[in-house]
Amino acid sequence: MRDFTYYTPTEVVFGRSAEDHVAELVKKYGGHRVLIHYGGGSVVRSGLLDKVCRQLEEAGVAFIKFGGVVPNPRLDLVREGIELCRKERIDMVLAVGGGSAMDSAKAIAYGVRYDGDVWDFFAGKAKATQALPVGVVVTNPATGSEMSDSCVITNEQEKDKRGYSSPFGRCRFAVSNPERTFTLPPYQTSAGIADIMMHTMERYFSNDMDMALTEHLAEALLRTLKENAYRVLADPADYVARAQVMWGGSLAHNGLTECGMERDWACHKMEHELSGMFDVTHGAGLTALWPTWARYVYKTNVERFVRFAVNVMGLPNNPEDPEGTALKGIEAMEQFYRDIRMPVTTTELLGRELTDTEIEELARRCSHDGAITVGKLRVLGREDMKAVYKLSR
Amino acid sequence: MRDFTYYTPTEVVFGRSAEDHVAELVKKYGGHRVLIHYGGGSVVRSGLLDKVCRQLEEAGVAFIKFGGVVPNPRLDLVREGIELCRKERIDMVLAVGGGSAMDSAKAIAYGVRYDGDVWDFFAGKAKATQALPVGVVVTNPATGSEMSDSCVITNEQEKDKRGYSSPFGRCRFAVSNPERTFTLPPYQTSAGIADIMMHTMERYFSNDMDMALTEHLAEALLRTLKENAYRVLADPADYVARAQVMWGGSLAHNGLTECGMERDWACHKMEHELSGMFDVTHGAGLTALWPTWARYVYKTNVERFVRFAVNVMGLPNNPEDPEGTALKGIEAMEQFYRDIRMPVTTTELLGRELTDTEIEELARRCSHDGAITVGKLRVLGREDMKAVYKLSR
Repeated sequence: MRDFTYYTPTEVVFGRSAEDHVAELVKKYGGHRVLIHYGGGSVVRSGLLDKVCRQLEEAGVAFIKFGGVVPNPRLDLVREGIELCRKERIDMVLAVGGGSAMDSAKAIAYGVRYDGDVWDFFAGKAKATQALPVGVVVTNPATGSEMSDSCVITNEQEKDKRGYSSPFGRCRFAVSNPERTFTLPPYQTSAGIADIMMHTMERYFSNDMDMALTEHLAEALLRTLKENAYRVLADPADYVARAQVMWGGSLAHNGLTECGMERDWACHKMEHELSGMFDVTHGAGLTALWPTWARYVYKTNVERFVRFAVNVMGLPNNPEDPEGTALKGIEAMEQFYRDIRMPVTTTELLGRELTDTEIEELARRCSHDGAITVGKLRVLGREDMKAVYKLSR
Repeated sequence: MRDFTYYTPTEVVFGRSAEDHVAELVKKYGGHRVLIHYGGGSVVRSGLLDKVCRQLEEAGVAFIKFGGVVPNPRLDLVREGIELCRKERIDMVLAVGGGSAMDSAKAIAYGVRYDGDVWDFFAGKAKATQALPVGVVVTNPATGSEMSDSCVITNEQEKDKRGYSSPFGRCRFAVSNPERTFTLPPYQTSAGIADIMMHTMERYFSNDMDMALTEHLAEALLRTLKENAYRVLADPADYVARAQVMWGGSLAHNGLTECGMERDWACHKMEHELSGMFDVTHGAGLTALWPTWARYVYKTNVERFVRFAVNVMGLPNNPEDPEGTALKGIEAMEQFYRDIRMPVTTTELLGRELTDTEIEELARRCSHDGAITVGKLRVLGREDMKAVYKLSR
């Protein structure tokens, strides 16, 4: 059993009334001049942005609106945000939106308190020692950024998508109202659920087999998400089901489901190359790779895949044929992805086959020219990556 | 589904190497002049206290040792600690020990930053607005104080045991090394497990039936604790099993298993009167009451008790006879308590029957002379309390 540190300081205010507490939370955590960071579209149309602004006005908190975040949030906008914060002496970044707005806000918060270029953190050239406080009003549960210590930014010049994690990347507070997710289109809903589940699966598919509590909590979370995926797709305004997904999104990535275990992250890393290169939706990129990854690696730890089949997918255990049970679990997950209309191959994801040249390039980037491996359950080198990308077609 | 706030800022450093980080954590959270608060006995004999002191010395952190905490920690000692902290300009309280040391440390931390008498908080006459920072080195997982927002103190003059909860009661950090629990006697081990499980059961036995994620996480936690109870009693030095219990103790009471649900707490409140009056071990007091409580209230929400029977105790569901299934679940839990050598009646707890006069007095205190009720799944007034105490003989 591995030693671990568990640190989830984010105050999460959750429920129908959650948004009434935004100004109170901003003040509690020291916001006097706030950068409100968002994308556009739904947070404007729904009136959420106005609601937040009105609250801050009434509470006498100064703020500046800074929109324009896009999915796979861009480094250029982050740099612009950093300049703006400095110029306006901003002391808190408040993201209103989904993972893109939250991740972009975190990157801005790092950058404001750093003398060099913010990309240094993502390129592994610097370690954060501080950041502006960040608060979030969540509208799309997927990335889990509201409670996680990580953020992912795309360097559009280099078509490079990279994550950075540190304790300073934890939000001070998160405001989560499941009603805000009623209007998410089915594709975004499904991709979000896939991402949420994968955050815990990347931790669950580990060779550490003795941390029963973490394992059982992870299984409970995955089962609940799976059940509620069908419910939210059948009725997008099912508050209780949306709440399970939203709260599950926070818990799946806040560290709870990794305590005492080694994490894998192979699928996430291989997917980041896909969405970095093709600008696809992250959750869909994950489901396009996972079945192939699982079949490629399962023999390394058949027992783990058996537990997944039985305890998460609810299949009968056949002790005579553990490999068969393991494979049935993978098939069942693949079928679940199909049920929620997610791609299960990269060909379905992109609408065409990856070319051999693209595969070379994806594996080259993912392996940093062969310098690094990904994954822990099974360590994957550049040739393995190529094989997985190929088999995923 | 209820709105909720989830706030667990405590940094938990967990594992064999955890104790190496005490001084680093003290400094990180602003400790310069530290009150080390403990009981005596095992933390002295085991060398843990010396280890902590040595680390602080080497790190150049000033400290004063203040021992003498006893189970069901006393108000007098808390008051003494407050005086000492003021005199010595202490800026952090570091508890080394189990729930008693942790709760006493929290009470001292409240008192130092309050002008009136610290009992005001417990008597409901004041609300904390601040407290000294508290860190803990945990040696006995039971109360969950390391991550919870609560502490329980006994006013020995008035034989009154009361709890107080507030966000300021959250520890800044907790250091948990399962090895430190190897030497816990079987009775303390079992009582601790009973207390841990009850912290989640008090939340699980709710009339809120729609928060599937919280419910499934609670069930996973209870199953894991139950399985590992047998393992630690069979082999007190089973590191992995001790770790499940210790980490389970933190999660069972940090708020995770109540998100979106109404809590009950009837058993805890009725037990506090027992241990306030007879100075018995809290966990044993809980098991002495729970089977009676459960049979007294289960008809109010048979479905909840059925889920407990099936999802926690692993019994088959008989849809023809939900009441029968519910009762079998209670019986199975009672048997589990017997298996781990915990009392299942107050007569077993005390070695004699409660007298009618004592029952009158317990119910009088627990109901504040009939002014308050306890419990939410089923609300229990003074007469109900008398009935439960009587039936528990």
